[in-house]
Parts: sequence; C-alpha cells; structure tokens
Amino acid sequence: MPSDIDIAQNARLQRITDLARDRLGIADEHLVPYGHYKAKLSLDYLRSLESRPDGKLVLVTAITPTPAGEGKTTTTVGLGDALNRIGRKTIVALREPSLGPVFGMKGGAAGGGHAQVVPMEDINLHFTGDFAAIALANNLLAAAIDNHVHHGNALDIDVRRIGFKRVMDMNDRALRDITVGLGGPGNGVPREDGFDIVVASEVMAIFCLATSLADLKQRLGNIVVAETRSRLPVHARDLKVHGAMAVLLKDAFAPNLVQTLEHTPAILHGGPFANIAHGCNSVLATKTALKLADVVVTEAGFGADLGAEKFLDIKCRKSGLRPDAAVVVATVRALKHHGGAALAELGREALGALERGLDNLRRHVDNVRGVYGLPCVVAVNHFSADTEAEHALLRERVQGWGVPIALARHWAEGGAGAEDLAREVVRLFEQPSTPRFVYDDDDTLWEKLRKVATRVYGAADVEAPAAVRARIEHLQAEGYGRWPICIAKTQYSFSTDAKRRGAPSGHVLDVREVRLAAGAEFIVMVCGDVMTMPGLPKTPAAEVIDLTEDGRVVGLF
Amino acid sequence: MPSDIDIAQNARLQRITDLARDRLGIADEHLVPYGHYKAKLSLDYLRSLESRPDGKLVLVTAITPTPAGEGKTTTTVGLGDALNRIGRKTIVALREPSLGPVFGMKGGAAGGGHAQVVPMEDINLHFTGDFAAIALANNLLAAAIDNHVHHGNALDIDVRRIGFKRVMDMNDRALRDITVGLGGPGNGVPREDGFDIVVASEVMAIFCLATSLADLKQRLGNIVVAETRSRLPVHARDLKVHGAMAVLLKDAFAPNLVQTLEHTPAILHGGPFANIAHGCNSVLATKTALKLADVVVTEAGFGADLGAEKFLDIKCRKSGLRPDAAVVVATVRALKHHGGAALAELGREALGALERGLDNLRRHVDNVRGVYGLPCVVAVNHFSADTEAEHALLRERVQGWGVPIALARHWAEGGAGAEDLAREVVRLFEQPSTPRFVYDDDDTLWEKLRKVATRVYGAADVEAPAAVRARIEHLQAEGYGRWPICIAKTQYSFSTDAKRRGAPSGHVLDVREVRLAAGAEFIVMVCGDVMTMPGLPKTPAAEVIDLTEDGRVVGLF
Repeated sequence: MPSDIDIAQNARLQRITDLARDRLGIADEHLVPYGHYKAKLSLDYLRSLESRPDGKLVLVTAITPTPAGEGKTTTTVGLGDALNRIGRKTIVALREPSLGPVFGMKGGAAGGGHAQVVPMEDINLHFTGDFAAIALANNLLAAAIDNHVHHGNALDIDVRRIGFKRVMDMNDRALRDITVGLGGPGNGVPREDGFDIVVASEVMAIFCLATSLADLKQRLGNIVVAETRSRLPVHARDLKVHGAMAVLLKDAFAPNLVQTLEHTPAILHGGPFANIAHGCNSVLATKTALKLADVVVTEAGFGADLGAEKFLDIKCRKSGLRPDAAVVVATVRALKHHGGAALAELGREALGALERGLDNLRRHVDNVRGVYGLPCVVAVNHFSADTEAEHALLRERVQGWGVPIALARHWAEGGAGAEDLAREVVRLFEQPSTPRFVYDDDDTLWEKLRKVATRVYGAADVEAPAAVRARIEHLQAEGYGRWPICIAKTQYSFSTDAKRRGAPSGHVLDVREVRLAAGAEFIVMVCGDVMTMPGLPKTPAAEVIDLTEDGRVVGLF
Repeated sequence: MPSDIDIAQNARLQRITDLARDRLGIADEHLVPYGHYKAKLSLDYLRSLESRPDGKLVLVTAITPTPAGEGKTTTTVGLGDALNRIGRKTIVALREPSLGPVFGMKGGAAGGGHAQVVPMEDINLHFTGDFAAIALANNLLAAAIDNHVHHGNALDIDVRRIGFKRVMDMNDRALRDITVGLGGPGNGVPREDGFDIVVASEVMAIFCLATSLADLKQRLGNIVVAETRSRLPVHARDLKVHGAMAVLLKDAFAPNLVQTLEHTPAILHGGPFANIAHGCNSVLATKTALKLADVVVTEAGFGADLGAEKFLDIKCRKSGLRPDAAVVVATVRALKHHGGAALAELGREALGALERGLDNLRRHVDNVRGVYGLPCVVAVNHFSADTEAEHALLRERVQGWGVPIALARHWAEGGAGAEDLAREVVRLFEQPSTPRFVYDDDDTLWEKLRKVATRVYGAADVEAPAAVRARIEHLQAEGYGRWPICIAKTQYSFSTDAKRRGAPSGHVLDVREVRLAAGAEFIVMVCGDVMTMPGLPKTPAAEVIDLTEDGRVVGLF
C-alpha cells in the first residue's frame, strides 16, 4: 500500500479555477488564488450568496478516540466523494490542520489513503497562511499588553493577572511556563507567562465564530486580557489594537477552497481545539458551503461527547446552523480497545471485547439521537485486520438499536468504497431532524454544566472547589450566564479520567478552573489537565520529514 | 498631499499574470499566484533562465541615516520607474518589509508618495507568507533543541550555551530576555533564552544567501545552535531537523513578483537586518531580476558604510554578483542634521549646516568610488522645504568632487520626477565598474576588521577585550578565517557612537562580541549595542491602523 503522501503526490489535481467554475459555478474574479490548487473565496462573493437556499448539513462525529484510530476526517472526505458519485452535489467542510503537530507525532491531518484533501503538503504546512495570521494578531495583542505596562500602565493592569497568552504554531513544551520582561527596565516588567499553540487561542475560536469582519473586530475588542489591580476586566479594546488585529486577519477570514483526490470541492477554514474551544471549522465556511452545494459534510473534533456537543451548543446555537443528519464513525479496532483488548492485540479477532466495547458506541449514538435529536448512521471505517464475524456482530447489534450502519472502505477504495454509507445518509434526509441543545440559554452556568455532565457524559454529578464555584457565580452575576459553556476535558473518556474507556457512568465531573472567553462568547470550564501547548516526542516526525534534491517533500504521513 | 495608503489604494494595478507576460514574457504556468497582484516565480522557471545574459546592476545606497529621512526605497522605486520611462527595461529588487515594525513606529516600508510598490497593504503585512515560514523553520529548530535536552540530551548540550534563539515577527521587548522550561520536569529543562525579530535570524540570512534548495538545506544543517559541555559545536544537522526546516521554506524560497505604481516589475524577496546580517534582498531575487531585465535597481540597508559594504563583501563575494553602478541617496534635511542643525530646524534654510554635513556624503561617495570601485551618482531626494540655494550649494560641491548629481522628485511626481537621475545612471554604465572587496578572503578575521574600520569607517584602530580576541583567534584556528565578517554596529554614525553624526575620524571600533553564523557563512562582529528585538513606542502605530466597516485598511502609512 503506498503512503498517504505518495497517493497525494501522484494525484492529478484540477486547477482550482477550473474546479470552482465547473463544479460550483464560481467565476474567476471571485477567487483569490494561492498557487494553482488553492484559493480563497472573496468575502464580496460570499455576501452575494445570501439569498440562496441552504443544502443539507451532515455532521460527522465519532466514538471516543483511542490510539487505535477512528478515521473521522477520512470518513468525511470519503463520504463527500461518495455522495458526489451517487449524484448529490456535495462539498466537504473541514478544519485546517495545525502545523505544529505535523512535526511531532501526529503526521498530517488532511485525511488518508484514497480519501484525502489535496494538495496534501500545502494543507499540512502553511496552507494559505491563516494560522500565521491568527498567531500574529494574537501576538500583537500580547505585545500591546506588556508594552502598555512598560509605558506607565495607565490602565493599572495587575501583571499577576494577565490571562492572555502568546501563541506559536509549534509543539514546544519549553514555552509552556516562562518568565518574560527580564534583563532590566528597558525590557519591560518581569512576569510569569506562557505560550499556547495557535489552535488553543481565543483568537482562533473568535475567527471561527465571527459572521463578518465587523463582527470579528467587535469580538476581538471584547477579549478580556487581564484584570486591573482592583480586579476589573481589561479588554483588548482598552489597548486599542483590535482594529489592527482585524487588519491582520482580514485576508485569512475568507474561506479556503481545495479539492479531494476525487475533485470534490472542500472548504477548509479555521481549526480551534475541541477542548479549550469548540473544535469545528469556521461558521463562514459551513454557511458558504451550504449555499454552494446540495449536501455539506462537516466534522467536529474528538468524540460525539465533546465535538458534537459543542458543534450544537456553541456553533449551531450562535450561528443558526442546524444539521440534518449525523454520522458516527467507529472502527472494530477501537471498539475492541474500549472493550478491554490491549493495543498490541487489536489485530486478532476478539468478539467478546467488541461486544463490551459497543457500550461506547451505544452511548454516543443515544446521545446523537436522543439528546441532540439528529437522525444518524454508524459508519464502520474498515481496517484490513477486521474479520467478517466482527463486522456481522457489529451490524447485528447496531441494527438492533434501530440504527442504520454501513461499512466504509474509502481509505482503500476512495469514494466508491463509501457509497453504501452515502446512500444511508441520503435515506436519513427523509427523516425529520430535530436538533436540540443540551441546555437552554436561560439555564445558569451551573445548570448547564450539570446538564452536559449528566445527559451527555453519564456523570452523576458536578463538583468544583469553592473558589471555582465562586468564580462561576461571579460570572453569572456579571451577566455572562446566558452564554454557552465550553467544557475542556480529556477526549479519551466520557469521564475526566483518560483511562476509563468504554461507557463509564456515575462519575463526577470535577471543574478545576473557569476561563471567560468574552470574545468567543463562551465560558470555558476546565475539567482535568488540558494541554494547550503540546510537546515533541523523543523522535519527532520532523526528523523524517525531508526535502529531496529535486524539491519534493518526503516523510510527511 | 494624499497619504501613501491613499495613493496606493487608488492605484490601478495590473493583474500580475498580465504584467509578467507583457513586461517580462513570463507565461502563466511559471507563476504561482497569491491573489491577483502578487505571484512567486517558480524555481523550475528560474533554472530555465540560467543561460541568459545578465542586465546591468545598480546598487542604491545612502548617507548615514538620520531621523530626518533619506528615502532610499522610494528612490529605488522612482529610479526603476524612470529607467523604464526612458526606455530601459528595468526591474527593482527589494527586501520584503518586516511586519513587526509596521505596528510600531515605522509605518510601511514599500516606498512612499508616488514611488511605491503595490499592493502596499499586502506587502507590509503578510505578503506571501515568507517571513512566517522563516519564523516557523527557525522555531522548529529551537523546539528541537529543548526537546533534545528534555529527552535525555544525548548530544550533551550545555543549556547555558545555547546561542540559537526563537523568533517572532513582532516588536515585543518583553521577549528579549526570558526563562523557558519552567513549571516542572514535564516542561523541559529551565534555561535563559530570548526571542529575536525574524529579520535578525540566521535563518533569514541563510534564506537570502542560498543559491538553491539543496544549498539552503545544507546551510540550515550547518547552523551552530549550541555547545556541548566540552565546548564542541552542536549543529542543526545533529538534531536532524534541517530537512524539515527546508520543507517549511521551500515555497517561500521562490522570489515574489509585484509592481510599482507605474507597473515596473518589482521582485521582493527576503529581508535580513543590515546590522546582525547583511541587509539585502535574496541572491536568488537579484540573479533572477538580472536575467529578466536590462537594468536591475536594488537597495542595501542603512548607509553605504554598512549596507553597501556588506552587499559587496558578503552578498557579491559569495554569489558572483557585481554591481555596475551605485546611487548614493542624500537629502538636504539629513545633511543639515549631519552638519549640526537640530531636527526642529530642518525646515529652515541653513547653508552652513549643509556645508558641514557634506562631510558625511563625501565620505560615503569616496568609499563607494575609491574603496568599493563603483561609478556613482548622488541622488538628492527632494523635500518641499529645500531651498534653491541649498540645492545649488549641494550641486556645486558634489560636482566639485567630480561626481554627478541629480535632483529626484519621484515622491511627488513618480518616475517622471526621477528621469534626470535615470539618465545619469545610464551614463555611468559607460564607465568601467571595478567592484572591489574591502578585504581578501585570505586576510585574517582581525585584518578584515581593521580594513573595514580604517578604510570605510575612518577609524584609527580596532579594539576588543581579551575574551573577544581569544574567540576571534579560536574561530581563525578552527578554519573560519576565510569567511567574510559582518559588522553589527549603529547605523547612525561611522563610529560606534550613534551621537557622532557627520564624518568622525580617528575613533576606535570596539568589538564586544563575536557570533559564528556557520549557516550564513560569515562571522558577526558585534560592536556596541545591537537591537535584535525592537519594542513598541508608547503609542504604537497599531492603535491607528484599523479596518473600516467595508473591509478597507486605514492608518497604515
């Protein structure tokens, strides 16, 4: 089997101007090309689409992630290709990959096998520069904070209470905890600080939720960067750099158009973390895709407890988007791991482990249908070591729950391998979709926490130290109670303990910290350790990634 | 008078594909577009040009900079436009502006008035992402260093002797001196560190000196990042990330094509500092421009003592480039300031101050002709407060030295205002150009220092503390003696004292520190304080730069 990059490099791509014209009817003048195979859709053009009807929106989500892999992005791409093959004009809408992790362990994030978005190297590296722009906008604000303190601190910023961090699109653990402003009075005021990776920044979340450049600028101005010595909030607006930040983001704000290996149009735009932020591509990208296609297949981060919940409770609530159907991606391997099989044993048939692991899938499917109100299909992303008996058991059980299921072989076969799945998705469109939020705007922040914990995570209760409870009450009293919450917890379990696979119940959701994202307009509830700056492994992928004499990239996987 | 951004935004730009075809005969397929008005020239296309003859190369340099302004970039642009107007097919080759300073005090760096390169906002902001790519390549190496130490430090890196810094394209003084790796064993090993601005990085210098992707990768691998505990050098190559760094730079490495307000093709590529590095656009850009035009007008940083010296001794020596003529830019205002007139008085006629200030111009002209061996013309960049008597005096004195002089009004009039200058430049082509280096490869590092100090700066001697002398001798003994030196000193004086304007003599060049740039292949001799991370002023330009409701940038000047 050739590697992802071999497949991608051997693909014959369509010129993006041709693809836009032929597939989507977009004239040249509405595209801002970045090379011959990437383009941004001009914001003026987007405004001209507003009166068009929307297509159907399909949300791809998954079981709880394990190291065994699920293949949510490949399934999104494969399903998009398959829908086009069966005659539905489809666009896939995805997050842009973060560059930092590409050099760590993770490899690329543009799909895999015969279900990829291309040009794969570009997408995994600088792409159209969006993340670089977000980093600079973020870091301009950070520089302005320290500069303000240095030049007299007229706003009376308490340097111990500056919550806004610098960012870099790099896995660099040495930057997690740092001190800045050392070396004497000429270098500013010393203080503790730290860097996050770009995708963990509030600027990224704002970028993905803003509906216009004016909204973007407004939200940037709303960011609370620090507190004064009398504990009053200091906003980006007070530092007067939100306009310049918007200037830095204005080009990036236009969605990016690329294609899959099978020339399905793909809109990739933005990419916030799914823990500290809401984990899906920009509102602008999804809305644009819905105007241009009959079906839009999009993806939410992590499992359906995190990504899909935030997709609905944050992105849909704020934007008016409403999904028509959901796909829950599972693999036999991952289900066996949830059922207790060790990673090293996943190549062997294990019906008992599979049966036990189904609890995880069941919980997610029940949530998607029962809590979120979406018709759904289970997509089994085929792996070569899967056995017929395993597939049969999986099919029987899922059908027993009254849920359709389809085996998908897009990784090996491209869109042709996902046609069964595509047909099931189309069948779901005949059912009514009744998307529901897990909580209401009017619920208190604490009630919101309880509802997500008990209804989605299967938890018995929510706990928090007194200081955290006080902070939540303070935010409630300050008028932030109507905003959605964004729970940051491990993606590896319904609980806050990454080791509890399967479908744990009766656990307690332990809130350790609360962060106000006043620009993104949600309250982050941090439950457990949340990594906002990854590190590199002992032998990072960067050691393998290389440039050949003739300028070809190798080692990107 | 409209502002620079007003002029730029009202300009009618030619589509870059049309400009490339009509002006340079470059077919569409050789361009990598970035929007409609910027493109990269493909590296394959560059290789196809190799057998073509070269055009004439004109180096634009200047008197010693003062806050009064000289206008070297506007003169480069205006001269390019004027040469095209008088029938010479001309390209201007410039550095890309650094984004950080745009938000500080400096404003844009894409020319001014009616002599600008456009699209001005793009060029001053993210442009085609080159600096972001350089920052990431640099920071990948930095992360790899700390990661190596964290995971066992097999190379035995002495964390007190890691010389390689992280970079950011932002004026952020709080990052000059920091400590990283705090917060416990999971976050790496604590150590002192700091950020430089991107343009001060060795990666930037390498990017601008490399002749091919293979050479780029080789040089990146050669960077000395640290010393071991037994004082042996640790190279980027030892960390095995130079290939991945080259991957991050491969797209950026293709030169950028834009245009002036008058549709003169402009190649902007790379932008190293002129103190810590050599201060001119990439070798690749200059070589490409020479293949495509009859005349190439390019610029070196700071005054002729720094930028022009490095242009010859570093860039030309290494690349084989040889300028055919030089333009020394001066203004009446700046000369009066050199002659003792206070900044507040520069609007008034002051023939005495002008006469005294001519010493500065004379020294530079003598260096350009006598030391560097280049025929030259003095370009007087016209300011509205200049008087006829001042112009007459200036003309008389310069002509008295046997040097041609031309008044240039490109800022107000565009290329038409610089036609006299263009005609003088063409006349210089009739004279033989005998470019000379200030020192020979075979001179010792100390002899090289002495030659630049005495021949170019007018210094009496060079001094250095014993430790610095020992370091120089060590590098000499290690075999680095044949490399050029890169003197980092204040740009505001021939001496190392920024307050000594005019043409000081008999001073001593005081070498404080020596840095090996083993990838760039020069030895940096730091003389005096050199700022490698600027700060923001009390009221930064970022407070004025804004985005209007309809998405237009304002406040960029």
